[in-house]
Amino acid sequence: MSSTETRYVMSDNMVVEELPWGPHEWLCRPDIVAADKLLLVRVRVPVGKAHEFHRHPEMEEIIYIEAGTAEQWVDREKRLLGPGDSAHIPIDVVHVTYNAGDTTLIFLAILSLAEIEGPPLIDVSQEEPCKSLQREVTEKFRGN
Amino acid sequence: MSSTETRYVMSDNMVVEELPWGPHEWLCRPDIVAADKLLLVRVRVPVGKAHEFHRHPEMEEIIYIEAGTAEQWVDREKRLLGPGDSAHIPIDVVHVTYNAGDTTLIFLAILSLAEIEGPPLIDVSQEEPCKSLQREVTEKFRGN
Repeated sequence: MSSTETRYVMSDNMVVEELPWGPHEWLCRPDIVAADKLLLVRVRVPVGKAHEFHRHPEMEEIIYIEAGTAEQWVDREKRLLGPGDSAHIPIDVVHVTYNAGDTTLIFLAILSLAEIEGPPLIDVSQEEPCKSLQREVTEKFRGN
Repeated sequence: MSSTETRYVMSDNMVVEELPWGPHEWLCRPDIVAADKLLLVRVRVPVGKAHEFHRHPEMEEIIYIEAGTAEQWVDREKRLLGPGDSAHIPIDVVHVTYNAGDTTLIFLAILSLAEIEGPPLIDVSQEEPCKSLQREVTEKFRGN
């Protein structure tokens, strides 16, 4: 069955990418199902780790916490989120997700659109004020 | 703070709608956050209940199971889904979600686009073959 005919995604046909801030389990992407508008990835962030500060020039995003505790930044605002909490990130707004707890953080990242023209992600972790913030918050959670 | 400035959605600011197949907890919608492309709703389906057969003429959807067991139909195909499993529903494809277990089924419905021109949902539960299927499957789960 070709990917465009696949409707169900389970542990045996999800696509796993190993990244520095934990495995990404892709559940909806154009190479897995007939996705046109939606991307879905489940991320497992080990204790003390974080996604770098980044932005998506063409994609809107929701972060939905499944297990653990996140310190979620959206622009200059941050909030501690637990299971069932979520954050909405408008297009091109800088954001980052830290594991702020003492267990693996599991969250869903939901993005739209699925098919875009330019790069999906711009790393801004080396630009100020993100660079200083990143250092500060990384040191805070390294103690965990 | 206006809804368009709200970035975080938790139990105290989600919007709950009571529907025949269980409460809908809206986590991302244009009246809650600055959503343009994404809708997110957590649905709690009691034992023996189901969403009616329906389709979304302008929206693509993902169903993601958080707890319990679903019999998920996409067009003529069905599958039993448990926690962490998902289904992708292309635009305008008929689908339905039954609680096939003996505990409350909790799933996330993720939809895009958020802003559309026409009706968000067309109920097709009174059209064949959905009408017969609906009767058959409803009777199957009523025994739970």
